[in-house]
Amino acid sequence: MKIAIIGGTGYGAVELIRFLTNHPYVELTTIVSHSQSGTELSSVYPHLTDVIEMTMEALDVDKLSQSIDLVFFATPSNVSKEYIPAFVENGVKCIDLSGDFRLKSAEDYEQWYQSTLAEQKYVDQAVYGLSELYAEQIKEASIIANPGCYPTATLLGLMPAVKHRLINNHSILIDAKTGTSGAGRGLSLNVHFSEMNENLKAYKIGQHKHIPEIEQVLQTESGENLQVTFTTHLVPMTRGIMSTIYADLNESTQTEEVIHLYKEFYKNDPFVRVREAGVIPSTREVYGSNFCDIGIYADQRTGKLTIISVIDNLVKGASGQAIQNMNLLNGWDETTGINHLPIYP
Amino acid sequence: MKIAIIGGTGYGAVELIRFLTNHPYVELTTIVSHSQSGTELSSVYPHLTDVIEMTMEALDVDKLSQSIDLVFFATPSNVSKEYIPAFVENGVKCIDLSGDFRLKSAEDYEQWYQSTLAEQKYVDQAVYGLSELYAEQIKEASIIANPGCYPTATLLGLMPAVKHRLINNHSILIDAKTGTSGAGRGLSLNVHFSEMNENLKAYKIGQHKHIPEIEQVLQTESGENLQVTFTTHLVPMTRGIMSTIYADLNESTQTEEVIHLYKEFYKNDPFVRVREAGVIPSTREVYGSNFCDIGIYADQRTGKLTIISVIDNLVKGASGQAIQNMNLLNGWDETTGINHLPIYP
Amino acid sequence: MKIAIIGGTGYGAVELIRFLTNHPYVELTTIVSHSQSGTELSSVYPHLTDVIEMTMEALDVDKLSQSIDLVFFATPSNVSKEYIPAFVENGVKCIDLSGDFRLKSAEDYEQWYQSTLAEQKYVDQAVYGLSELYAEQIKEASIIANPGCYPTATLLGLMPAVKHRLINNHSILIDAKTGTSGAGRGLSLNVHFSEMNENLKAYKIGQHKHIPEIEQVLQTESGENLQVTFTTHLVPMTRGIMSTIYADLNESTQTEEVIHLYKEFYKNDPFVRVREAGVIPSTREVYGSNFCDIGIYADQRTGKLTIISVIDNLVKGASGQAIQNMNLLNGWDETTGINHLPIYP
Amino acid sequence: MKIAIIGGTGYGAVELIRFLTNHPYVELTTIVSHSQSGTELSSVYPHLTDVIEMTMEALDVDKLSQSIDLVFFATPSNVSKEYIPAFVENGVKCIDLSGDFRLKSAEDYEQWYQSTLAEQKYVDQAVYGLSELYAEQIKEASIIANPGCYPTATLLGLMPAVKHRLINNHSILIDAKTGTSGAGRGLSLNVHFSEMNENLKAYKIGQHKHIPEIEQVLQTESGENLQVTFTTHLVPMTRGIMSTIYADLNESTQTEEVIHLYKEFYKNDPFVRVREAGVIPSTREVYGSNFCDIGIYADQRTGKLTIISVIDNLVKGASGQAIQNMNLLNGWDETTGINHLPIYP
Repeated sequence: MKIAIIGGTGYGAVELIRFLTNHPYVELTTIVSHSQSGTELSSVYPHLTDVIEMTMEALDVDKLSQSIDLVFFATPSNVSKEYIPAFVENGVKCIDLSGDFRLKSAEDYEQWYQSTLAEQKYVDQAVYGLSELYAEQIKEASIIANPGCYPTATLLGLMPAVKHRLINNHSILIDAKTGTSGAGRGLSLNVHFSEMNENLKAYKIGQHKHIPEIEQVLQTESGENLQVTFTTHLVPMTRGIMSTIYADLNESTQTEEVIHLYKEFYKNDPFVRVREAGVIPSTREVYGSNFCDIGIYADQRTGKLTIISVIDNLVKGASGQAIQNMNLLNGWDETTGINHLPIYP
Repeated sequence: MKIAIIGGTGYGAVELIRFLTNHPYVELTTIVSHSQSGTELSSVYPHLTDVIEMTMEALDVDKLSQSIDLVFFATPSNVSKEYIPAFVENGVKCIDLSGDFRLKSAEDYEQWYQSTLAEQKYVDQAVYGLSELYAEQIKEASIIANPGCYPTATLLGLMPAVKHRLINNHSILIDAKTGTSGAGRGLSLNVHFSEMNENLKAYKIGQHKHIPEIEQVLQTESGENLQVTFTTHLVPMTRGIMSTIYADLNESTQTEEVIHLYKEFYKNDPFVRVREAGVIPSTREVYGSNFCDIGIYADQRTGKLTIISVIDNLVKGASGQAIQNMNLLNGWDETTGINHLPIYP
Repeated sequence: MKIAIIGGTGYGAVELIRFLTNHPYVELTTIVSHSQSGTELSSVYPHLTDVIEMTMEALDVDKLSQSIDLVFFATPSNVSKEYIPAFVENGVKCIDLSGDFRLKSAEDYEQWYQSTLAEQKYVDQAVYGLSELYAEQIKEASIIANPGCYPTATLLGLMPAVKHRLINNHSILIDAKTGTSGAGRGLSLNVHFSEMNENLKAYKIGQHKHIPEIEQVLQTESGENLQVTFTTHLVPMTRGIMSTIYADLNESTQTEEVIHLYKEFYKNDPFVRVREAGVIPSTREVYGSNFCDIGIYADQRTGKLTIISVIDNLVKGASGQAIQNMNLLNGWDETTGINHLPIYP
Repeated sequence: MKIAIIGGTGYGAVELIRFLTNHPYVELTTIVSHSQSGTELSSVYPHLTDVIEMTMEALDVDKLSQSIDLVFFATPSNVSKEYIPAFVENGVKCIDLSGDFRLKSAEDYEQWYQSTLAEQKYVDQAVYGLSELYAEQIKEASIIANPGCYPTATLLGLMPAVKHRLINNHSILIDAKTGTSGAGRGLSLNVHFSEMNENLKAYKIGQHKHIPEIEQVLQTESGENLQVTFTTHLVPMTRGIMSTIYADLNESTQTEEVIHLYKEFYKNDPFVRVREAGVIPSTREVYGSNFCDIGIYADQRTGKLTIISVIDNLVKGASGQAIQNMNLLNGWDETTGINHLPIYP
């Protein structure tokens, strides 16, 4: 099976390449970069020297459609929506790591992305690629809207509690923290080493694009018109996301009971690991891997449920989940090519 | 004025020394270390070489009381309560950086510190040393219970909102993050460089000793029997605390209005800086200094007030505030010796 | 093929496990830990939860010899020399990540390791496992003395220059830098996060155990009785070694000429990548992988050759090379199970 | 005494401001920024909020000359040489943190700075501001060429050995390492957090501008036409420089003897601290302070002298030394305003 990546100079692309290179069923044949077509990939990413010797190309949808079966978009916002319709019409499956096809509502998209939603027909076709929740739909999809990094950690952390009606869905508060790679390779003072090192920053409080994405899924799954409080922080590390999630328990529940429900919920999901009572996962424990690790604490004193959900933002939060979705789409074992252990330490 | 420090090998002590060395009105004459008496301080902390050439001594309360006027305790829990009564009886003022004299309730102390509270008579004398809130009492105190690092950031962040009845006090949730120096110099796998670097960890969820300290002050100041949700995280940096504080606004309020109230509240407090709307302080902006910087966001969509409060945990969160309290106690300008700008970058 | 690891609680062991888990030809059946026998591995290394569920065992050489074909020693100094002879007599191949069998001279071993060398008969059998240099001997070995991390980076960086007689071998100076994981998981103030973060330290100047190891190989390969100047530094990062190597060029040579010779020298070695003129590899470019990347600069002004050689100390500097040697020993492709791309960023 | 800073948006300027704010004899009245005149300094550096409330101005040499006594240039290369002559003619003392007036030879300047040297008359007036070596000339200077960060650490480390003729001056090799703040606030992929974190890079091997600066001083002080090998590395930390310096001892000398000579050499210099045998300073031990700490190891096995010299690149390597020079120039105690202890940890 032949694969192309659009957006070859970003971190999403190199992380796709890391996994695809060792994937047994696919061949990466084309890497497209708008800004750097004609450039050798290894001159931009020297860690690929002698192993991935490919020249980045300009995008020609029709030509590319003839030679490939599936395309990953690892592009900034508002790029994939221009090209995915043509690929789909040409019979090429699309997995989109950007946010263009995640929101179903044109109004929400305009409010949070300050841009116009893609043609509704294609938005309707797009399946939200949270693998553990929507595996059945993903298998039939032509467009997969790969989830954002924060929504992945947050929704996997919340879903069993929401489905089991353990919590008051109107009390959900998410204090999220990320490493800097989520901000990409674009230069900014915010992630200038001298200023980000030995520093901790909150940003985009109440204004992050991932808010409507989280709410859309929670509303659909709960049937309630809820809103979440969501704050994001930049931590001086390259990889890793932690969502610390809080909600009021509907009734007094022990930590162990909650853990039991969570383990049952994810018993067939190899990439979600629910920890025992008293054990809280740290981001390093999923570093470089596709795991989402979850820790639970039900506070008997305050009636608050605290859920800690950690992922590697570039793997389960982006490229790893994209490949998991590709596997599902093709009927392969979902762990194919991404069953790496975390790198520790 | 002659000063002694008890607990000479910890970070609290070296940070006291950094400020006291340049303080115009005091002389540091004695450093006590139980575990390392007889050792030169500079052999334990080589950065003091040639500047602070003192030998650590064993503690003899009566002898020491004759030569000094004030003592700082920078000791672990359950040490100062053994010695402070005798110092007080000898007429020596005590500033305690540990938690021994912070809680007023013997029951709370036993529950959270797993130990017996100090003699109630001395606990009653002790003034909680949150300088901006209790300056008047501090000026008259013989024992100052210097606040914990998390309570300092959290209470300074909350107090104007509580006093102005802006928020529902029963909805307070604090997601706190600290650098590793708060864990001290004692070795543990948790702060082993190879495991803490490029890592983010939640710890002691709902179980941190600073919970009753925060609640005690909030209950006193609000008159309400409230409880807080409080979670702590270790961030891969040495210094800095950020408290991200959430509460429900009692009525719809604009960010600018809240900021205005905060600025008024702290207008005579040189170490508290409230930022303008849209500006959120990061921990680096107070690094090495005694400032507490506060950012505000009132979310019109959710009705939630978010307060970001940052300090250097070893300065305003410990030794800097201790010296601020010493200044207040002696009627000196409260910024004496601690009016350093943050080190940036 | 059945495999055991002795020394299950160290970083060498977990890195072996990371690679062995996905290796197609081997099965890891036993993990031995002297200090933690009876403990589940995942309780010590939670990142292995649900994937590697094994209990560590005590060592019984005879019993173990009946069920396994090959054993990796990932033990501290002076352990493997006690057990390897018995394994060898039982027909079990041994790959030793410690330094016990690297030095051939009993005198050198005593001087640098402050202990007695293993029985000479077994030392003589041991092959020094620098894969690129000694592949033929490795294929026939019963004991493989896996090289130290610094010697691996340094010798791969030097060997083409020494073999081609480009440099004065008596002028070799190595300024080496490592991340902290080389110091292992044992706690020490030296690698306490608060003190190692934002810090750079030189250590063991002229006294590091890896000096005689480097000199032994250089002496053998050059036929000269040379000594090297070797200094080591701790850098605030977890993984990575850089050897900055200096030597006087025997005659004026252009950078490009040296690079040409290096590329030729390593043309059949998939894990050594020699960069083009003007390009110097950084440690991140080999992170998590078995590559050794080399950059060259021949200074026409001073006649000095500078060689930059980088590896991941836990992979090519330890566990990755150990598996490469296992592959060679068994006649498998040397990249089997370790052909991962570096993790970037 | 009234002071201006030219180049207000760089790290050199903010570090000057940190020290000048608490300096008892000077008043900072003007901050000039070419690119950001009219902007409030605290909007660019929020850590100065409420404390330094100044607006940056455009440069008008004549007008500024009437109101100030001394100007610091904290500008990029090739700026100060345009303005310093006019200030000098107006009777204003100039301390230049850039490299414009360090090299005396027009040829060297053109080769290493790719630009034309300042007017020779002013270059001749300029005194090289290595405070410990040239205090007498500094006291009489109108232009002080403040040394580069690497040359400061390196020359202080070498000077006693050169002056006492302990070493072969033709064998000097310097392996230098710096934190990222030396690269300034300008954005580049090289110091993008995600790529610099957990990374170590060599750069500008044999081509750094500080080479001719080091050689010029060594040639002058030794009377020999020597050249040095000099390599620079970027370390994942914000502050700190370590120069690891190697040279051949002229005759067998014990470490203790060398240390004795060094201590004698610097006995009247409060900012240079020579460590005892067996103790090597790390960069953290001078963090935020104006100290230069030196460790010595004389290797009896190889005859090589190794000198470790550490400074904070922004303090003794830039702004701290600039103020030290201002103090010398004005006949004040050289430690005035910069006698801070290092921040530890």
